[in-house]
Amino acid sequence: MLSEKDRAEIEEVIAIYGHVVDDNAWDRAHLVFSDDFVFDFSEFGRPNLNGVAELKDALRGRRVYSHHSTNVVIEEQPDGTARVRSKFIGFPNEGPPISGDYRDLFVRTPDGWRLARRRSSVRDPRFD
Amino acid sequence: MLSEKDRAEIEEVIAIYGHVVDDNAWDRAHLVFSDDFVFDFSEFGRPNLNGVAELKDALRGRRVYSHHSTNVVIEEQPDGTARVRSKFIGFPNEGPPISGDYRDLFVRTPDGWRLARRRSSVRDPRFD
Amino acid sequence: MLSEKDRAEIEEVIAIYGHVVDDNAWDRAHLVFSDDFVFDFSEFGRPNLNGVAELKDALRGRRVYSHHSTNVVIEEQPDGTARVRSKFIGFPNEGPPISGDYRDLFVRTPDGWRLARRRSSVRDPRFD
Repeated sequence: MLSEKDRAEIEEVIAIYGHVVDDNAWDRAHLVFSDDFVFDFSEFGRPNLNGVAELKDALRGRRVYSHHSTNVVIEEQPDGTARVRSKFIGFPNEGPPISGDYRDLFVRTPDGWRLARRRSSVRDPRFD
Repeated sequence: MLSEKDRAEIEEVIAIYGHVVDDNAWDRAHLVFSDDFVFDFSEFGRPNLNGVAELKDALRGRRVYSHHSTNVVIEEQPDGTARVRSKFIGFPNEGPPISGDYRDLFVRTPDGWRLARRRSSVRDPRFD
Repeated sequence: MLSEKDRAEIEEVIAIYGHVVDDNAWDRAHLVFSDDFVFDFSEFGRPNLNGVAELKDALRGRRVYSHHSTNVVIEEQPDGTARVRSKFIGFPNEGPPISGDYRDLFVRTPDGWRLARRRSSVRDPRFD
């Protein structure tokens, strides 16, 4: 079962992600991403990003200059990984802030919990 | 005294609330709300919502499509309940994000901490 | 080494800060600030604010009426203090929300962890 320490570590990795990406602090990327990290764009029919180098390239000329994470919910999986859902608020270069969701896979590595896979979606007004 | 685990559980319930409400994931509502949950509108002179079914109905045609929680502060009460204050950012269907406050009552149930009462207020610019 | 309890306490102080400042709840300021608190404006070439009384004065006629903290990252220092980075979302009286960063120094006091120094910066769209 995940300990309080496990949960706090995962939340911290999610927190650090925002600083790394927004500050271009790629020297700290090893604190966030597993070696085989994948940014999963399959649901958009776009190719995935594989590894930190591809993520870094993709973020050049970025559209969103600040990322805030909230509402982190962690669920341990039977295989020892963790599924993590969170929400984010992004500040685009133009226009008001946006709200979105991250769906993450976290893995336990010798250096601690790391983000192995992230799917991101932006939320639209929804009438129901 | 509240343990770190108690506090982490309460924070997680607040986090899950946003996902349940924004995703219409009412099958997960039992993870958030106590059976006798009340959404307290007394300060607005409107009737309270009693139970999840009334909340779900009230949110149809909702005006705010995403809810992010931050600044959670938990205070144990002498009767074993917890008073919890937090802030939220809401994304209305129209117009820029809003900032508000939740004042919650949490209770310990056999299944864990659950939200028994919530008051919500939206914050306005304030000059002092 | 910082315990989970230390980390949770520091996160809570950051959470309370938003409530104190936004609610003008200065009677709770002792839960947040060390006696020798400094709001550090050195990088802006403006004088620092020293102590809660100066902060309170400076916030009269404030421009930002709500402060939400996210992405808290805590690093223990060899001298027993803690460096804490976080992000904030502020709601200005006019215009859409802003995104910024806090760089904090926390100290351990007989009453618990307290904020001894804060630097704040507002983030701008950045093209790279």
